[in-house]
Amino acid sequence: MSADESAEKSNVAVIGLGSMGFGMANSLVRCGHSVVGYDPSATAREKLAATGARIATSPGDAATNASVVLCVVVNSAQTDAVLFGDGGVFPMMAPGSVFISSATMAPTEAKRLSSRLAERDILYLDAPISGGAAKAASGALTIMASGSPIAFDQVRHVLDAIATKVYRLGDEPGIGASVKMINQHLAGIHIAAACEAMVLASKLGLDLSTVYEVITASAGNSWMFENRVPHILDGDYRPLSSVEIFVKDLGILEDIARAERYPVPLAAAALQMYLATAGAGMGRDDDASVARTYAALSGVSLPSTKAAS
Amino acid sequence: MSADESAEKSNVAVIGLGSMGFGMANSLVRCGHSVVGYDPSATAREKLAATGARIATSPGDAATNASVVLCVVVNSAQTDAVLFGDGGVFPMMAPGSVFISSATMAPTEAKRLSSRLAERDILYLDAPISGGAAKAASGALTIMASGSPIAFDQVRHVLDAIATKVYRLGDEPGIGASVKMINQHLAGIHIAAACEAMVLASKLGLDLSTVYEVITASAGNSWMFENRVPHILDGDYRPLSSVEIFVKDLGILEDIARAERYPVPLAAAALQMYLATAGAGMGRDDDASVARTYAALSGVSLPSTKAAS
Repeated sequence: MSADESAEKSNVAVIGLGSMGFGMANSLVRCGHSVVGYDPSATAREKLAATGARIATSPGDAATNASVVLCVVVNSAQTDAVLFGDGGVFPMMAPGSVFISSATMAPTEAKRLSSRLAERDILYLDAPISGGAAKAASGALTIMASGSPIAFDQVRHVLDAIATKVYRLGDEPGIGASVKMINQHLAGIHIAAACEAMVLASKLGLDLSTVYEVITASAGNSWMFENRVPHILDGDYRPLSSVEIFVKDLGILEDIARAERYPVPLAAAALQMYLATAGAGMGRDDDASVARTYAALSGVSLPSTKAAS
Repeated sequence: MSADESAEKSNVAVIGLGSMGFGMANSLVRCGHSVVGYDPSATAREKLAATGARIATSPGDAATNASVVLCVVVNSAQTDAVLFGDGGVFPMMAPGSVFISSATMAPTEAKRLSSRLAERDILYLDAPISGGAAKAASGALTIMASGSPIAFDQVRHVLDAIATKVYRLGDEPGIGASVKMINQHLAGIHIAAACEAMVLASKLGLDLSTVYEVITASAGNSWMFENRVPHILDGDYRPLSSVEIFVKDLGILEDIARAERYPVPLAAAALQMYLATAGAGMGRDDDASVARTYAALSGVSLPSTKAAS
């Protein structure tokens, strides 16, 4: 028996088989876990079936006999529906099993969901993810997690299968959600700033490839500048991560900040640009499309668009 | 004769001996150039004299017999005064000599100064710098330069003495200034965003050192986040680069953007935070002091301050 085969195996239900959920389910199959998946899309279900995972007819069906439910949906409303909606997982999960929640949401929502699960002694791991579809596919995500030590212990092998970095941020739900929001706060501003600055560079007549080269080697660089500006240079707005994601995440951030009586003028300015971009019909395009909004507002011609909306 | 001794040596006048100018002058001395310096501050002049450089009584005095004048002042107004004010360098420079301008300024200002110098056949190199005092001291700056090939040829050994990266961005003055403005545009937003996000993290009860560790390994990272947040964690606001620098640079940026009819909502929001921080009396403190403004606006206690203003 190899070291790999001797590792603990779990019955894992993966709910939500988009680019992130599919990659995570696939990573779990690769590591030898018994995986059953569910997604409302038949196409997504068939894609997972081809990897050797089982397919369920509802979230609740998937959760039957699972010791771990991994929920990879977009927001707290979808997470709530997976748990408590028709065919939801809540009535089917066994006491002592673990619900891993990956959606980006307000910390108060993570606490609320955790409290409801505690009514039936189901453990809740507040575990937002970072890294994108490619890292999900290769099992190389970053997870920003908080929850009880017992919950962490029970899902250690599951987390190891999907992530190379697991931050254990504390024992209480809500901490993972909060740290993820801080990351999205910065990421959302940095993408909008990259677009604002690069379109201005074009307005000033600069060569954009040269500016990219100089800035990525200078103090003005950011992870998002380095990652997203090539989309602008290539005129390629096919969605790797869409404008609507930041409409959602900076919207959650503004709600949190308003409740805390905390001013976020930079995040607020960035959100307006994502809203304008979505309002102009580019909501499902890549988030670098914010550059097209700045271009439209200033008469700038960006490199030719391969996937205009 | 060693390879170093065989390299071309120039008579270089360095005008402005603050932390950047002093480091650059010192790097030139180290590389064997004949350096004469000037600064209105006697302390700054004495500090340079100790390195073996000569000291002049005015900018014009320094420029006499210099083939290169390196001007390391704060803005275009000071550059204008160095050139055309009382005791200025313009009447003293020989036709064919080169004026290297390092101040951050609007591209229109760089073009205007270059045109005036051309009246006497003095060459102008538009050469803003990036990198901070430590890199200035070690001759490891980044230079974002534009100007005629003849000007570049004449000052190659001077640039090599002070910088490890010299970007030749074009033949016209103004291009270097424009690229530097794009860098400052991003840098100014990223510092303010780092402050906005980290003080919110504190408001949400998160451990700031943990957040720093997670974010620097995640998509929310920026060069400025990584560099400036430790000042917040240490409560150390002694100025490495002051709030007033970004009041100036984002002010120039807003002037450029307004003239171009180009909207900069993120830069505008960031500038308001630098202004509020300067208005509260922290203009000469480190630019991470913007965090203290967010803290004051939200009742947050940051790590204890070692150098309150």
